[in-house]
Amino acid sequence: MKIQVVTNVLAANERIADENRSLFAAKRIYVINLMSSPGAGKTSLVEKTILALRNRFRIGVIEGDIQSTQDADRVAALDIPVVQINTGGGCHLDANMVREALASLDIDKLDLLIVENVGNLVCPAEFQIGEDAKVMILSTAEGADKPLKYPLIFQESSVMLLNKIDLLPYLDFDVEKARKASLSLNPDLEIFPVSCRTGEGLAGWFDWLGKRVAAAREGKTR
Amino acid sequence: MKIQVVTNVLAANERIADENRSLFAAKRIYVINLMSSPGAGKTSLVEKTILALRNRFRIGVIEGDIQSTQDADRVAALDIPVVQINTGGGCHLDANMVREALASLDIDKLDLLIVENVGNLVCPAEFQIGEDAKVMILSTAEGADKPLKYPLIFQESSVMLLNKIDLLPYLDFDVEKARKASLSLNPDLEIFPVSCRTGEGLAGWFDWLGKRVAAAREGKTR
Repeated sequence: MKIQVVTNVLAANERIADENRSLFAAKRIYVINLMSSPGAGKTSLVEKTILALRNRFRIGVIEGDIQSTQDADRVAALDIPVVQINTGGGCHLDANMVREALASLDIDKLDLLIVENVGNLVCPAEFQIGEDAKVMILSTAEGADKPLKYPLIFQESSVMLLNKIDLLPYLDFDVEKARKASLSLNPDLEIFPVSCRTGEGLAGWFDWLGKRVAAAREGKTR
Repeated sequence: MKIQVVTNVLAANERIADENRSLFAAKRIYVINLMSSPGAGKTSLVEKTILALRNRFRIGVIEGDIQSTQDADRVAALDIPVVQINTGGGCHLDANMVREALASLDIDKLDLLIVENVGNLVCPAEFQIGEDAKVMILSTAEGADKPLKYPLIFQESSVMLLNKIDLLPYLDFDVEKARKASLSLNPDLEIFPVSCRTGEGLAGWFDWLGKRVAAAREGKTR
């Protein structure tokens, strides 16, 4: 009976996610679902991505947090339209929360929507929100054993940003081990070693994302 | 109806947690439920704690992970009895999983049981397992804004180990901000700034824990 409940919840979520996806396609908006552990650097990546791409694309952000508007405040400071979802204890965003948040955004004026999920390496990966791509961040400070311990998020993601590479001299993190373990779970995973702090490596990510947002805007194959 | 289900699940869990708690008290075992984000240093803390206290107390460990036995392997290498729980996707341990794991431990021969939860700053804090104390780790690499964004775990914990203080020179982490925010949520929280890597600060934690394990063994007030 417990399994039945979970199945229904996921199926119901999937239906709303499909509706969101159709809406985004009709509006030619490219949507990413950004996921990671707490403190891996999601909001810093959002800030850097906005600064890099704002001259080419119209960007909007949905911030997911259990409570507080700290992340939305950081985005709003960049003069970018942002909606904060407070889950009130909930450990992930779902498609319905995103749909509700869309009512507070002028989506006719967006090319790229970044949805920053609740900091959690487990539950967010289970819930579609209608995104074009799931993008995850792994922080070097978390250790190279994470792919094999939290496999679903690595399997579901299109991109992994390996963040905080500026800390590598002070850690025992094995980049090759993390890369191999991640690719063993998902051979198609695009991996970008980056530092949001120094900017190192971010150009590759901006290029990956910019191409896709441009293609979506032109109505090409998503 | 959805809320009804959640209420029942938590109430059912609470009953089993109470049974676990009675069993631990009868056996005079002190039990900690160790929680943190992925990669904050739970297993490293378990290893250091074993090495520091193994001459005084008989220690057992339950390792919770979504999959893999990597953490249990590290504990077993220290010749300590350990049971691995694989949740198979589940984002937290519950009281029943711990009860099942107890069948594989000779609890008549333990003074201290360390339960390492799944790496997740959200869900584990909602589920009692029959522990004497919840102990959490916050990594300096995660940032000082975490208490206000993930309040429940700070409210539920008796101890917070602020780990990876050896990285402070390379981070923008504000220790006082994190301390104040944590205490604003939980004025009784004991905070130990530590580095599992260098050993700095761990003596205070060993002393805190050692006193409580000794008291439990002697049948004093828990």
